[in-house]
Amino acid sequence: MESKQNTGDLTQRMTIGDFLLRRLEEAGIRHLFGVPGDYNLALLQQLHDSGSLEWVGTTGELTSSYAADGYARLNGLGALLVTNGVGALSALNGVAGAYAEHVPIICICGSIPLRSIDRGLGMHHTMADGNFDHFLRAYAPVTAAQARITPRNAAVEIDRLILTAWREKLPVYMELPSDIAYLEIEVPAHALVLAEPPSDPERLQSCIAALAQRLSAATAPAILVDTDADRFGVVPELMELASKLQAPVAAINAAKGVIDESFAHYAGIYGGKASEPQAREAIESSDCLLAVGYRPIEVTTGDFTATLPAGTIHARGHAVDIGEENYQAVTLKEVLRGVIEAVPAVTNRAPQPAAAAAPAAPADSAAALTQAAYWQAIEGYLRPGDVLYVDNGTSFSLLGLKLPPNCTFIGSINWGSIGFSVGALLGALTAAPERRHILLVGDGSFQVTAQELSTILHHDHKPVILLINNGGYTIERGYLGKTEPYNDIANWSYADLPKVLHPGATAQSFVVKTCGDLQSALAAPNDRLIFVESIMDPCDAPAPILHSSNVGAELDYGPRGPQHRENLQLRPGTLK
Amino acid sequence: MESKQNTGDLTQRMTIGDFLLRRLEEAGIRHLFGVPGDYNLALLQQLHDSGSLEWVGTTGELTSSYAADGYARLNGLGALLVTNGVGALSALNGVAGAYAEHVPIICICGSIPLRSIDRGLGMHHTMADGNFDHFLRAYAPVTAAQARITPRNAAVEIDRLILTAWREKLPVYMELPSDIAYLEIEVPAHALVLAEPPSDPERLQSCIAALAQRLSAATAPAILVDTDADRFGVVPELMELASKLQAPVAAINAAKGVIDESFAHYAGIYGGKASEPQAREAIESSDCLLAVGYRPIEVTTGDFTATLPAGTIHARGHAVDIGEENYQAVTLKEVLRGVIEAVPAVTNRAPQPAAAAAPAAPADSAAALTQAAYWQAIEGYLRPGDVLYVDNGTSFSLLGLKLPPNCTFIGSINWGSIGFSVGALLGALTAAPERRHILLVGDGSFQVTAQELSTILHHDHKPVILLINNGGYTIERGYLGKTEPYNDIANWSYADLPKVLHPGATAQSFVVKTCGDLQSALAAPNDRLIFVESIMDPCDAPAPILHSSNVGAELDYGPRGPQHRENLQLRPGTLK
Repeated sequence: MESKQNTGDLTQRMTIGDFLLRRLEEAGIRHLFGVPGDYNLALLQQLHDSGSLEWVGTTGELTSSYAADGYARLNGLGALLVTNGVGALSALNGVAGAYAEHVPIICICGSIPLRSIDRGLGMHHTMADGNFDHFLRAYAPVTAAQARITPRNAAVEIDRLILTAWREKLPVYMELPSDIAYLEIEVPAHALVLAEPPSDPERLQSCIAALAQRLSAATAPAILVDTDADRFGVVPELMELASKLQAPVAAINAAKGVIDESFAHYAGIYGGKASEPQAREAIESSDCLLAVGYRPIEVTTGDFTATLPAGTIHARGHAVDIGEENYQAVTLKEVLRGVIEAVPAVTNRAPQPAAAAAPAAPADSAAALTQAAYWQAIEGYLRPGDVLYVDNGTSFSLLGLKLPPNCTFIGSINWGSIGFSVGALLGALTAAPERRHILLVGDGSFQVTAQELSTILHHDHKPVILLINNGGYTIERGYLGKTEPYNDIANWSYADLPKVLHPGATAQSFVVKTCGDLQSALAAPNDRLIFVESIMDPCDAPAPILHSSNVGAELDYGPRGPQHRENLQLRPGTLK
Repeated sequence: MESKQNTGDLTQRMTIGDFLLRRLEEAGIRHLFGVPGDYNLALLQQLHDSGSLEWVGTTGELTSSYAADGYARLNGLGALLVTNGVGALSALNGVAGAYAEHVPIICICGSIPLRSIDRGLGMHHTMADGNFDHFLRAYAPVTAAQARITPRNAAVEIDRLILTAWREKLPVYMELPSDIAYLEIEVPAHALVLAEPPSDPERLQSCIAALAQRLSAATAPAILVDTDADRFGVVPELMELASKLQAPVAAINAAKGVIDESFAHYAGIYGGKASEPQAREAIESSDCLLAVGYRPIEVTTGDFTATLPAGTIHARGHAVDIGEENYQAVTLKEVLRGVIEAVPAVTNRAPQPAAAAAPAAPADSAAALTQAAYWQAIEGYLRPGDVLYVDNGTSFSLLGLKLPPNCTFIGSINWGSIGFSVGALLGALTAAPERRHILLVGDGSFQVTAQELSTILHHDHKPVILLINNGGYTIERGYLGKTEPYNDIANWSYADLPKVLHPGATAQSFVVKTCGDLQSALAAPNDRLIFVESIMDPCDAPAPILHSSNVGAELDYGPRGPQHRENLQLRPGTLK
């Protein structure tokens, strides 16, 4: 336990709480999501007194964590404040989701006083068993770093945790004991700089040279991006590189929208048999594929049918694999900038324009709304610059729509926690209230976190919420339980919820049963929150989603599973 | 990895899923709470086909865990079924709460297939990092035992986990890979017997003799109970012992209602300075105090002012401390039964009848409703046999009311997770639908889990829900932030929620603003769900609760904290 000495740098004295708030602000965080609890009120008072960040109280901690995630997707970093034990563990699923999706968020837990830890005193919001490390332990598997702040480590640990989150693009967990927020410590006077450590010069140059040589020598180079391309901020570099090489770029479905879909070299979604055809051709026939942050799982690979070419180069945030060589101590952005410089411009591989989709037949406006008509209408509704959210379920259909330029896709394909989208919506609305936000969610997912609509209305946000009411977990019916009651949920008057959660709300609600109803609802001016409840058949689901569920059931339940029994599985074409 | 051999006992062959369901049923579990997910659908299909347990789907996994807890409080054991990662971690706070409150529940997680673990295949609902043990690790700090079921360990592990939960009165966690539920294994033919292992005879006799000797020799023996008295099922023995010794019995507030408050020897709640007077006298002046499962924390001890007499005997579920001696391998019930036999009956210590409370002045029915009038009215509303729930907040006032005979109190004083009560209500209603259930909850707590009202209505339960709408976290205002906005919450039309969450519901809702309104609402016949929203001033709070918050702030924030600043803390007497 060393005391921190002034080693020549300028220092100043501040309370620990004020220093933490200052660091969050310096890291670009302007809002803090969370739920008050007695152990975090001291920090909240400091926030209130300093006016440093804006507090966004949520109805519960799970949605705080989802909101911090959604916020970080647009802001680069997000944070939430919870209370000891009960709050921390309620947020755990959302923080784990941020880990799975590589989103940097800082989970701050106002925890029991150091005095009680030192004395071994039982406190509320603990297990009352004399062990106060349980929640640090529970957080260890789902965060990149964890620490309990003390007056002696605060100046170092706060910076370490924030920088770790930012550099690794992963969540971190910090316990701030309630009795130290107002204690004064010595802290650096200089602002926190969010920067990568410099690359090792030799490794960087060798990596750039090797990568440029391979890409230049190839006749059919191609790029495949996963979400890390977005998280590490290298999308402009990847597009510049693709342009210079005239090379196609595909994305895995988790990275929908990371590459602007109107980009000339964008080839579509790659996922083995579940690919768009142009993307599959580009990736699988490439003689030099650069994969960025690729993390294959069953639902991003067409159930493990993705086959990357031999010799695929794997670039990650801080390392690159080229053949036998592994390059460490390099940063992705520096590598790509160097490669862009080093490769000669190619002029003879201009992309073939994608075949224009045949115009869909206009829907009969009196006909009952089907999933097919619904997604066709949604595609027409999208505008450049929209922020689009999907939750688990038939809303995955968004993955198959062509997005206008500059859209942002907020999903959770790896983690896939139902209800995530509603909390993420609050967070991303807070980060970018000037953009149009469109939530695509099913009834089952919505029920998990529906009350966060209250906070969205309370802050006068104006998203478009497009909810499918089809009586339950239709995507699960494709795995098992086509009509079994365990996939049913209780029916709500969803469209009436805004006025209950925010009396006097000016939100406009629609209950949609026909294609004509939907067109009317989508024509409503978006000067207020729009809530559209679309009622559809529980056995109506887009064929690609059902196909994926049907195949998923084979993976999940194996050869002895019940999925082959008569009528247990909803399959494509069930609804005529 | 040994193969399980038939060692002479009768065995039979069953699928793993059917065996698990059979064991749950044999353990007395008749309902399973949870949320379906693709990894648990195979077990759900087995449940559906066998009709073994009744499935109670909830809107999310946090409330599944609360429901399992509430169910176990009345049923002795409860269970929930969640899906990998997302479901498991959403339930973690509720499972941790069951640990803190010593409630045995079995959390079953339908997890990714063994095939994928063996092959290291990435799957959805994981961290996509090739490590599949994260959630077992996250559960380790909050459960008594954890295991991943395999075909080779299933017959042993399922029994171990269920028995551990039941014997320790703590939660356990089980991962059931989705591809093994339908595999056939050899299992014992005999039913699972929920039984303690027999005590060590010498230890048991020595313990009984020592305890009986001390209690018999004392002039003022007394008993202090914590929740374990209920969990280990020894309340009848404690009451019999108290009767035979004519000794007073007090309870700490966490164990409210564990001893019937109409029992002649019941002395009230003990918690140091926060005690009822008769209880404090009985406990602190006892010359032989038997404390059962005593776990002191700040909110159960009047902020550490509880002072148990020197030489207090501490009895726990499986061990007793008497002076220097520690007795292991004994069970509480056997010890108490032996002591009851061994002590001579006392006839000269008949309890003094408690002073009857002065009848409260009738409330002016036109007056705006106050907390004082509210709790007076609630006390008059209680009936023998009620199941009563408190959530965190001014609803803690229930702790100060005199309960009629045979009431059950369901609270969470150690863990204190807001929103717990709504999920626990669903669970306990499921276990005992024939009793009257009364939920006492504030707006802040209710917002966390409000949607579970949908499930309660869906199953046609008829609880009485008494909600205080006072604009936020009033109990926190007593710590810090008397009028600071961080303690405010968005206002809802709470009373309109039942008809939105269950269109066509016959629930009867009331919005109460005056004492007369409240009387009318409480007079409604309870042939349907009654929902009473009582609107009160945010700065109105019962004095004992504010006092506890005010003192709590000293413990939480220490001498440098902001709690002493002008007007930052709501204090008793603020509302005239």
